[in-house]
Amino acid sequence: MEKIKIGIYGYGNLGKGVEIALKNNSDMELVGVFTRRDPDSIETIFDDTKVYSAKEINNMKGKIDVMVLCGGSATDLPVQTPEIASMFNVVDSFDNHANIEKHFNNVNQVSKENNTLALISCGWDPGLFSLNRALFEAVLPNGTNYVFYGRGLSQGHSDAIRRIKGVKKAVQYTVPYEESVKKVKNGEDPQFSSVREVMWRECFVVLEEEADSSKIEKEIKEMPNYFEPYNTEVHFISEEEFNKNHIGMPHGGFVLRSGKTGENTKQIAEFSLNLESNPEFTASVLVAYARAVYKLSKEGKTGALTVLDIPIAYLTNKTQKELLNSTL
Amino acid sequence: MEKIKIGIYGYGNLGKGVEIALKNNSDMELVGVFTRRDPDSIETIFDDTKVYSAKEINNMKGKIDVMVLCGGSATDLPVQTPEIASMFNVVDSFDNHANIEKHFNNVNQVSKENNTLALISCGWDPGLFSLNRALFEAVLPNGTNYVFYGRGLSQGHSDAIRRIKGVKKAVQYTVPYEESVKKVKNGEDPQFSSVREVMWRECFVVLEEEADSSKIEKEIKEMPNYFEPYNTEVHFISEEEFNKNHIGMPHGGFVLRSGKTGENTKQIAEFSLNLESNPEFTASVLVAYARAVYKLSKEGKTGALTVLDIPIAYLTNKTQKELLNSTL
Repeated sequence: MEKIKIGIYGYGNLGKGVEIALKNNSDMELVGVFTRRDPDSIETIFDDTKVYSAKEINNMKGKIDVMVLCGGSATDLPVQTPEIASMFNVVDSFDNHANIEKHFNNVNQVSKENNTLALISCGWDPGLFSLNRALFEAVLPNGTNYVFYGRGLSQGHSDAIRRIKGVKKAVQYTVPYEESVKKVKNGEDPQFSSVREVMWRECFVVLEEEADSSKIEKEIKEMPNYFEPYNTEVHFISEEEFNKNHIGMPHGGFVLRSGKTGENTKQIAEFSLNLESNPEFTASVLVAYARAVYKLSKEGKTGALTVLDIPIAYLTNKTQKELLNSTL
Repeated sequence: MEKIKIGIYGYGNLGKGVEIALKNNSDMELVGVFTRRDPDSIETIFDDTKVYSAKEINNMKGKIDVMVLCGGSATDLPVQTPEIASMFNVVDSFDNHANIEKHFNNVNQVSKENNTLALISCGWDPGLFSLNRALFEAVLPNGTNYVFYGRGLSQGHSDAIRRIKGVKKAVQYTVPYEESVKKVKNGEDPQFSSVREVMWRECFVVLEEEADSSKIEKEIKEMPNYFEPYNTEVHFISEEEFNKNHIGMPHGGFVLRSGKTGENTKQIAEFSLNLESNPEFTASVLVAYARAVYKLSKEGKTGALTVLDIPIAYLTNKTQKELLNSTL
């Protein structure tokens, strides 16, 4: 059987995750990585991965079934997704929740005009968490949704610390309060009056020589929006310890709905993730959905989609007979 | 806007659950309950619920958008689903895993011939658990699935105890071992050599007067298939205590996949339910999916489906704009 031909556009942590994920899916093959950097400067995870200049994608029309877009949501994807969707079926992980509708409409127009299919905002949030928010609300209309993140690395908050003068390296973990999690999971339906009750922020910082730790700790804790609204702990550690314990990108969290069916019948549904590598997991979601995009495009579907529009059967490479007998 | 017209076929715990669930869904209305018993003998939950004889369904063609079938899987649904799918769009909760393919094929043929749409094997297992099994396997192809049930009431095992001479009332709860659950949730990927390591069975029994408790306890614990393969605890209680604490039908459990993306990157995904009423929750799932069946049938879709074939967007009564802005 012919394999599904995948391209990776953008080669950061997410792009590397897609390269890894494809090795777990024998019905798919990687045509190559497309980068705006000098292709010769790129070190891929696997030796047999081909690297092309982003400029070459025009020559790849018809040679790639689905292009997985691995750029960032702030500036890359709003431009790249419509541009590339004019040539290829695409999957992106656009995660700026406030702008999803706008992005959807932009991409939908281009895809319809060019008979391509584009799945936007895939990953875990938005993505699998969205799927469960919609499912839970439909099944338990009378209820409350809770979303907790962590324990996990926050890229944005880590960056914010690294911008402080005197900081050499830093990571920030978002940590939910066990107490609050327990209340939610027990179905106590707590009302949290501030984010301070839900999660706290734990920072591990390596200082430049002669930096003033107490000054830096204060600067972190008082940083508006990023840290001021939260309880924050700052640990100063050696570079050695940092390199040993803090280079992974763990994350996770859960969506939980606490609802009632009858007047006093409590029902709780939860979807949770515990991830050692956020980018590798997100990439695995993108790859499973790339299979769905491939199948749907073969059926003639065009335009923009979200995960809410795709039946789960399209994600698998099992036959209907297998699904009926072994999965249902 | 016109409401979706629902019929309930069969009026046991599940049918009552559907009656309750419809009150939480303002875009749907209950046309009536259809029963094989004398309609006058039926006490419905809500006063305004109409009850018809099952024989009258022939006169209801065109007056019901989706018939929710609430019979049992052993003998009712294999006959009823194809029969009623010849006249109406239907949703059933057929849960005999070994026979799902056969049931699907029977129903598919009738539905195609009669231009109706039939969703089979809906609920939570099969149903939402199936959805997550398929999703998890697609996203983490390299991994292991775990399914735990409980703490929850097992109808079959409760019935088995009640058939013992000298037993007046009985319930049996399936209880997972905390230790085993913890290993699974920690990603330790335990291999269980027998069901005895996974769950145990807790029984609450009210005896007839002068029954021999030690003889009955032995008979329960040694019952082949039902109790012999498990660790079983038997508590003899008063009828008063039974009626106070053991008339609910709680259940739940989880599907968890422990997988790897890169060579050593552990990723865990979990879907779990904690239900005070198993039939009311199952009914709520059937009702949300009845909405999807209605929408899909309006699009001209016919034949048999499972939950794996239906996009989650079809379950909700939100517009696409609302989903893009508030759910994704």
